[in-house]
Amino acid sequence: MRYQLYYWPGIQGRGEFVRLALEDSGTAYDDVARGKGGKASSGLDAMMAMMKGAGEKKPPFAPPFLKSGKIVIAQVANILFYLGPRIGLAPKDEGQRLWLNALQLTVADFVKEVHDTHHPVATGLYYEDQKPEALRYAEGFLDERAPKYFGYFERVIDKSGGPYLLGRKISYTDLSLFQLVEGMRYAFPKAMKTIERKISKVVAVRDRVAERPNIKAYLASERRIAFNENGIFRRYPELDK
Amino acid sequence: MRYQLYYWPGIQGRGEFVRLALEDSGTAYDDVARGKGGKASSGLDAMMAMMKGAGEKKPPFAPPFLKSGKIVIAQVANILFYLGPRIGLAPKDEGQRLWLNALQLTVADFVKEVHDTHHPVATGLYYEDQKPEALRYAEGFLDERAPKYFGYFERVIDKSGGPYLLGRKISYTDLSLFQLVEGMRYAFPKAMKTIERKISKVVAVRDRVAERPNIKAYLASERRIAFNENGIFRRYPELDK
Repeated sequence: MRYQLYYWPGIQGRGEFVRLALEDSGTAYDDVARGKGGKASSGLDAMMAMMKGAGEKKPPFAPPFLKSGKIVIAQVANILFYLGPRIGLAPKDEGQRLWLNALQLTVADFVKEVHDTHHPVATGLYYEDQKPEALRYAEGFLDERAPKYFGYFERVIDKSGGPYLLGRKISYTDLSLFQLVEGMRYAFPKAMKTIERKISKVVAVRDRVAERPNIKAYLASERRIAFNENGIFRRYPELDK
Repeated sequence: MRYQLYYWPGIQGRGEFVRLALEDSGTAYDDVARGKGGKASSGLDAMMAMMKGAGEKKPPFAPPFLKSGKIVIAQVANILFYLGPRIGLAPKDEGQRLWLNALQLTVADFVKEVHDTHHPVATGLYYEDQKPEALRYAEGFLDERAPKYFGYFERVIDKSGGPYLLGRKISYTDLSLFQLVEGMRYAFPKAMKTIERKISKVVAVRDRVAERPNIKAYLASERRIAFNENGIFRRYPELDK
């Protein structure tokens, strides 16, 4: 089975949580809107058309979405819930899958709050138009929210016996945790130094993921887009501390 | 099977999306933290202890969560994904369940943005401490975001052939859509008058849900907590327009 991933070209964004699972498992996929050679724009057009619902009975609200044969699946946690057991990154047991899904949805909540550090007022405005609000937001985010989320994942690894969230076996949410650490290090290098002091098990997951051969190859490839100031994790030094 | 729902007492909040599904389907459940008679505080203590992970190998990050026999399920969309087919409010087909889950996750995204109209800067601060930011946030929310979300659900109903999101059969996300309309009418009565002009199919879902016997009985009962200014949907007239 070859999958088609639809996501904005040029950023890691929310699509990256899906890409990491596809890459780690060596699953074949097309990154449609990025295209190949000169085809990028036609892929992007196709993505926009699907959201508008042209010929699509179940139009997604927003990217990323994944096409698997005839079905289209939107929302990161939903995509990973579907892919997980098929690509060896989730258990098949229902209770375990639901537990993993709850963790992944907590990752999604965290990601939304990261996004809001630079867009606390409106997605439709530029960061430059909401800077005072962003400064206030980022303060509470770095002091309370980020440590709370990471502290939660630390506790989960501790209770599972580690080294991963579910215990001995890696899951797609461990790959997402890698991305959260990488992104936070990029966006808030100073604050992360403090935060990381208390989350050694989370950092150990990050290190293990970084050493996985398929992830290593992916990170070194052109398929891994660099962090930048159009994505979720943005480096605005004035927001860090 | 009797379920135990854990959620903050005193507000509808996110727990309400689960309550509506349990009530509509006539499913037996305990609203643990609200308790019965004098037992409320011990139920709340139990909820807090579960989050702290006392004796719990899989501690939830936040309420609501549902206990079903030995398993504990957190995150609204995840709870409804589990309950749906068991209580007759979701199809059993995998593709349909994933589609419904994507819709429910879009409801969750909408709810988070509603919450942020009164808490754009920090969950840990009072509304009164973030009023200027809330005024700016609410403007974009009412002009763009709320119409965009509702317009999306309108399109989905249209494409399914109606009258519900999935077509002829009601699902748990239709109950959530009812709650979104009710909540928005409570919080932003003026803006909703304008918004509702373009979403007649969404409003028709709201009306159908309101007429269902179990929902009618629930809404008239003491179990339905009134909207108030501690919940997700708050009436602050200065934010409406």
